[in-house]
Amino acid sequence: VDQSVASSVRGLGQFLRFASVSTDPGRAGDIHRCAQWLARQFQEAGLAATVEPTGGHPIVLARSERVAGRPTLLLYGHYDVQPAEPLEQWTTPPFEPAVRKDPHGFDAIYARGASDDKGQVWAHVQAIAAWNRCAKLPVNLLAVIEGEEEIGSPHLAQWMQENRQQLKADVAIISDSGQYARGVPAITCGLRGLVYAEVMVHGPSHDLHSGIYGGAVANPANALCALLATLHDAQGRVNVPGFYDDVAELSAAQRQAWNRLGTDEPAMAAELGVPALWGEKGFSALERRWARPTCDINGLSSGYQGPGAKTIIPASASAKVSMRLVPNQKASNIYAGFERALRQRCPAGVRLEVIQHSGADPSLVSEDSAALRCGLRAVQTGFGAAPVLIREGGSIPVVGLIKSILGIDTLLVGFGLPDDRVHSPNEKFDLAALHAGTRTAAALYQELSALGRSS
Amino acid sequence: VDQSVASSVRGLGQFLRFASVSTDPGRAGDIHRCAQWLARQFQEAGLAATVEPTGGHPIVLARSERVAGRPTLLLYGHYDVQPAEPLEQWTTPPFEPAVRKDPHGFDAIYARGASDDKGQVWAHVQAIAAWNRCAKLPVNLLAVIEGEEEIGSPHLAQWMQENRQQLKADVAIISDSGQYARGVPAITCGLRGLVYAEVMVHGPSHDLHSGIYGGAVANPANALCALLATLHDAQGRVNVPGFYDDVAELSAAQRQAWNRLGTDEPAMAAELGVPALWGEKGFSALERRWARPTCDINGLSSGYQGPGAKTIIPASASAKVSMRLVPNQKASNIYAGFERALRQRCPAGVRLEVIQHSGADPSLVSEDSAALRCGLRAVQTGFGAAPVLIREGGSIPVVGLIKSILGIDTLLVGFGLPDDRVHSPNEKFDLAALHAGTRTAAALYQELSALGRSS
Repeated sequence: VDQSVASSVRGLGQFLRFASVSTDPGRAGDIHRCAQWLARQFQEAGLAATVEPTGGHPIVLARSERVAGRPTLLLYGHYDVQPAEPLEQWTTPPFEPAVRKDPHGFDAIYARGASDDKGQVWAHVQAIAAWNRCAKLPVNLLAVIEGEEEIGSPHLAQWMQENRQQLKADVAIISDSGQYARGVPAITCGLRGLVYAEVMVHGPSHDLHSGIYGGAVANPANALCALLATLHDAQGRVNVPGFYDDVAELSAAQRQAWNRLGTDEPAMAAELGVPALWGEKGFSALERRWARPTCDINGLSSGYQGPGAKTIIPASASAKVSMRLVPNQKASNIYAGFERALRQRCPAGVRLEVIQHSGADPSLVSEDSAALRCGLRAVQTGFGAAPVLIREGGSIPVVGLIKSILGIDTLLVGFGLPDDRVHSPNEKFDLAALHAGTRTAAALYQELSALGRSS
Repeated sequence: VDQSVASSVRGLGQFLRFASVSTDPGRAGDIHRCAQWLARQFQEAGLAATVEPTGGHPIVLARSERVAGRPTLLLYGHYDVQPAEPLEQWTTPPFEPAVRKDPHGFDAIYARGASDDKGQVWAHVQAIAAWNRCAKLPVNLLAVIEGEEEIGSPHLAQWMQENRQQLKADVAIISDSGQYARGVPAITCGLRGLVYAEVMVHGPSHDLHSGIYGGAVANPANALCALLATLHDAQGRVNVPGFYDDVAELSAAQRQAWNRLGTDEPAMAAELGVPALWGEKGFSALERRWARPTCDINGLSSGYQGPGAKTIIPASASAKVSMRLVPNQKASNIYAGFERALRQRCPAGVRLEVIQHSGADPSLVSEDSAALRCGLRAVQTGFGAAPVLIREGGSIPVVGLIKSILGIDTLLVGFGLPDDRVHSPNEKFDLAALHAGTRTAAALYQELSALGRSS
């Protein structure tokens, strides 16, 4: 691994050139070319690899030669990325990867998907290649790298069901999370769930002159804002009946452990460009991000949005709204309560439409298992520092699918840094993290090879 | 006039081909070409005409030879138009005028600006040409056709100030309003005012991952909706302190007169594509449109607005908000109260920015004047039907400027129809209204020639 650092960065640069934006129908060609390219990289690393069709974007499936008596690892990752907009905020174009110093002076590669998740998948590809160059991969390895993670994995569950037999494994590994801070690597033991919905308010059949008709018809944009404003109370809590019913309270021990990790809240505020952090009263920022649910508007659109003025009552108004869920909330219950509350509160004179884009339950991983101990040792080897146990505010819905469909627990070993700006302009991946992550992956295969064996 | 119907429609078609969208900086060339073309049309109609530069888009100034002892009329109109978006809702392209039957089977010309205001300006150009073909225009006429009406006439006041001497006139005429209904022509005696503002809420310096940071920072889109939702109470009234303080209550006689005009509210709802009309309790739809103030969101924009899902906390959120004002509200007071209320209500954790795009006071015209009586007779001649006295929900801010700067009262004689869809896709102008309007303008010059003479 240490001898192939430069070629690893070059290879990741190729990976990042594919504009594999899964939500954009116009990028289907980029998605397919990216999948084909990735399959070839697994082949060059010594695995058999195929591009598997699904009802949507394809899955790259790679496998080592199956040796009886060895444990089998299921590696999951994704090669699709978030949209890159707003493009004008990128220093270098999102699909023209550029290596430069980050604001703290560390070398990084800048591109959409650098950290989420191509760079982390790439660390595994490089670790597999290194094993097969020098010795022989010491475990049976199955890699499932999908192309629809950023749109809620709509075809993954069915594909897993149909391929349950060949996906049998002892433990799953996902590297799609992060270190706690530079120099403090981590293993993630909890993830928030997600409900993503679109709320549309329909009014007149066409935009109306706001002078001629203003006052005579309900304004869909006014109605949408009134409706969305009901979703929080004055304390910043989500105002949907039953929303908090299943939320697990944190133990005092857990809160103490997280307090010891320490967050420099003013530094985080400065990093994000806000005067101060903000949120639900009674919880630290870390607790709010890891263990409290949210309801955030992700996008608003209505009427005239160009420069200057246009005096219209818009025909419609829409919002994208997502809720992050924590143990033990259920995505299906939360979406049902959300839609019910909106329907009850919708003002007169307009028509409401609500659709769900995706849903995923939150997940917690045991903090005491043989696989976790292997992970802790591998991270120590890879990063040269002891990892901490953390949670993650984001959602990796596949953890739930892997458990429910394949019956396998997942080990979340992530290599990103908190300032990687995933989903934002100028996303990056730290080159030292790519190196340490590749070392960690290589060590992890070794550690896990001693685990209980499958048949 | 009756003998040049076909050539009038052809000429209007040329006028409508200019994409003279004043709010769009990319259309400045179209604006200039349109002004040059219009000046030539006035010249061909027998007037001296020039294109006058301003700090923004130019003004077309046309004048008849000044004959002492005759009254002088100031004709105001505008050759700029609203943006045509959303383009996909147009049956034929907005700047490729098409003559076809409207949904009720009447011939109309479809294009952006057909009714607002090019078609109505064109009726006057044709009336002037007809007079000069057959006899000699019986009044001194000054035409001021500006290119910035749809963006609030930012340079008109200064230009009028600088040209006060040459703009001296006895009465002003504007044709930028409408008939009450097909077969019921009208003269407009009241206009609402307008305050147009933009409300921006700024949060983090870049879009953030809603999983990693959700709950830790204030969401600007959530904050914007919360803020805008405070602008109305549960009764549909505008919830800004002092907003109604100066609103003139309608007299019982006025309400009775308007009731006699009659509005078919279900028919209007069907026309607009809404299940029912809606608005402030205690007032008919006509009263709400003509004599009650409003606060409408004209546009909303924030975060991700493409297809599918993107899980971000947007860096900012913005809304375009307009308020229609009625006698005796003052635009300056209303904007000040609006901004003050927003600043007081802005939630913590975000930064608020409010700017004013334009402002115009409402206006009322005397229902008993010599000029009005001339107008009533001219409309009877032009349309063959007695006109009614109405108000207009829209704003023509120049009426106030003409009064305050030039000291002249305005006669509002409009030819549009309520279903012309001004500011909307598929705007049209009725060909019978073009003909009757041209006849009305020609008769109006004759009627007004007997008015009290200027020096």
